[in-house]
Amino acid sequence: MASDTFEASRKISDEIKADLPVHPEKYVMLTGDRPTGRLHLGHYFGTIRERVRLQDAGVTSRIIIADYQVITDRDTTEHIADNVRNMVIDYLACGIDPARTIIFTHSAVPALNQLMLPFLSLVTEAELLRNPTVKSEQEASGHALTGLLLTYPVHQACDILFCKGNVVPVGKDQLPHIEQTRQIARRFNERYGRVFPEPHGLLTEAVEIPGLDGRKMSKSYGNAIALSATAEETAKLIKKSKTDSERLITFDKEARPGVSALLTTAALCTGRDEQAIAAEIADAGSGALKTYVTEAVNDYLAPIRARRAELEADPGYIEEILREGNRRANEIADATLDEVRAAMGMVY
Amino acid sequence: MASDTFEASRKISDEIKADLPVHPEKYVMLTGDRPTGRLHLGHYFGTIRERVRLQDAGVTSRIIIADYQVITDRDTTEHIADNVRNMVIDYLACGIDPARTIIFTHSAVPALNQLMLPFLSLVTEAELLRNPTVKSEQEASGHALTGLLLTYPVHQACDILFCKGNVVPVGKDQLPHIEQTRQIARRFNERYGRVFPEPHGLLTEAVEIPGLDGRKMSKSYGNAIALSATAEETAKLIKKSKTDSERLITFDKEARPGVSALLTTAALCTGRDEQAIAAEIADAGSGALKTYVTEAVNDYLAPIRARRAELEADPGYIEEILREGNRRANEIADATLDEVRAAMGMVY
Repeated sequence: MASDTFEASRKISDEIKADLPVHPEKYVMLTGDRPTGRLHLGHYFGTIRERVRLQDAGVTSRIIIADYQVITDRDTTEHIADNVRNMVIDYLACGIDPARTIIFTHSAVPALNQLMLPFLSLVTEAELLRNPTVKSEQEASGHALTGLLLTYPVHQACDILFCKGNVVPVGKDQLPHIEQTRQIARRFNERYGRVFPEPHGLLTEAVEIPGLDGRKMSKSYGNAIALSATAEETAKLIKKSKTDSERLITFDKEARPGVSALLTTAALCTGRDEQAIAAEIADAGSGALKTYVTEAVNDYLAPIRARRAELEADPGYIEEILREGNRRANEIADATLDEVRAAMGMVY
Repeated sequence: MASDTFEASRKISDEIKADLPVHPEKYVMLTGDRPTGRLHLGHYFGTIRERVRLQDAGVTSRIIIADYQVITDRDTTEHIADNVRNMVIDYLACGIDPARTIIFTHSAVPALNQLMLPFLSLVTEAELLRNPTVKSEQEASGHALTGLLLTYPVHQACDILFCKGNVVPVGKDQLPHIEQTRQIARRFNERYGRVFPEPHGLLTEAVEIPGLDGRKMSKSYGNAIALSATAEETAKLIKKSKTDSERLITFDKEARPGVSALLTTAALCTGRDEQAIAAEIADAGSGALKTYVTEAVNDYLAPIRARRAELEADPGYIEEILREGNRRANEIADATLDEVRAAMGMVY
């Protein structure tokens, strides 16, 4: 993405950020996750906490559990129902309120998925192949490029536009997707009459949440603290994380990735500064640091885990939340598809 | 397509043709048309007559009016509702019986369209690009290859498989589409458990219906006699068709394309032989031939046109047929999608 395009996107994002608390009623926000495993601290501090904040500020919010995205680059849907249920539990435990935020699964909303057909007619093969994220995700997967991954920016446009989402929290690397969604909305409106908004990306701060080894927190690196882990599992994970033999604790991401990752984790959970925590531990060594971090994480997650336990004990309630979320998403999708059909003259 | 693959397809097609009248209950046939204009004699003798024959033989039949296919290679849906309504009128006038054959529109069946998502995960970009028909249709259209045309064999798989169609009348050039549908069905069944049949193409005889100028009959060549044309319009069209000044009428497709196309048209409508008709007209010249052809066509189409007029006078009935067809198609598609969701573990 050219840097001037990026600057333009950042400018709009900043304006929206300033306007959101003032006019929350102007915005419909679409976010979501692939149900490939449990949510962890990286997801929490990276996006979930911000979603809760915006929801609580009065922004209309929809969360898509993107189950079809699981098969863009893999051949199996193993454990998917379990992952979906646990994702709902995680959301609710973190403060997503199903009365205000619709939580739904991609595969349960046929009218949303039907938008694929008209939208695919609005993009060229060349535009699909040009998307940099599609290329890099395909390379990372080691699989041949599937038709589903190739057309993934188009489903994302369906996910955003079915509910007339106009703001989507994204990282910088996802801006090309939002641009493709804007293009699809614009072309549809020009060709058939105005139905869709042209959504903007809400650039999230580059809070890279380090895993316990200093790399990005990711389930596949085994460096992630799941929200659903017990206090004991958390203690064990932190205990075996790799630090160094230097007793004086200092914050230095380059030279001391393990120690620094622990400091950042504690800082996020306590609201304190990494330097201040390091100074407090001083020369008590990594054992003392780990004890501090374990307590910080477990204290922070204690109320979330308590709610998690209550929710887990009531599977009927979780099913009901999903059923109701899917019902409401279908209602919105059906209404939008009716508008699309009418605009295209396909009412028979 | 390699000639041995073609021979294998023809062998299976011949076996099915022989078995169809004996065991019609074993087959579900899917056919359809793009609603880009009025049906004409070429459609009638090319496919519609055979559909009616198979329907009457007891083969379960579904006809898709492929409205989304209209935008694979063009930017407009102009006149689409009118084209759809007239297509239903043409079908019924020709003998399609809505009590036995479901007539429905592609855009009215969301669960059918949702199959696009799982099916797109079963094909690679390379396989999509390899389809020879997609390439040639794109070149013919003069447009850039849209995402919708690129993925067109995948929608076709959705159209066929949503109703578990196992036999699809096709020309030789469409066999690669059927092969792609078979591959999608096979891969889905292998990956998630058996849900779909592997359909076969029913190769239609290469009855090339000539237009009035000897080229293939096609609305875009202006050489087509629409089923909906009046007897007067038909007479006028035939009168101005290009023949030659040789008074002796003979059947010679190469040297006398105009005269021969008229003879073939008359032969199809009367069930007689081109040579016999030519011999009868002898040296009465092309004026006499045109009179003969006009009468043959108008006589043949008279009952169809009489039913057409009745149907046209009752727009509420046509709407009802389409509403009921769409309702039944949705019922089938919803049930199939439920099976697909269950097989993929996506039941929440």
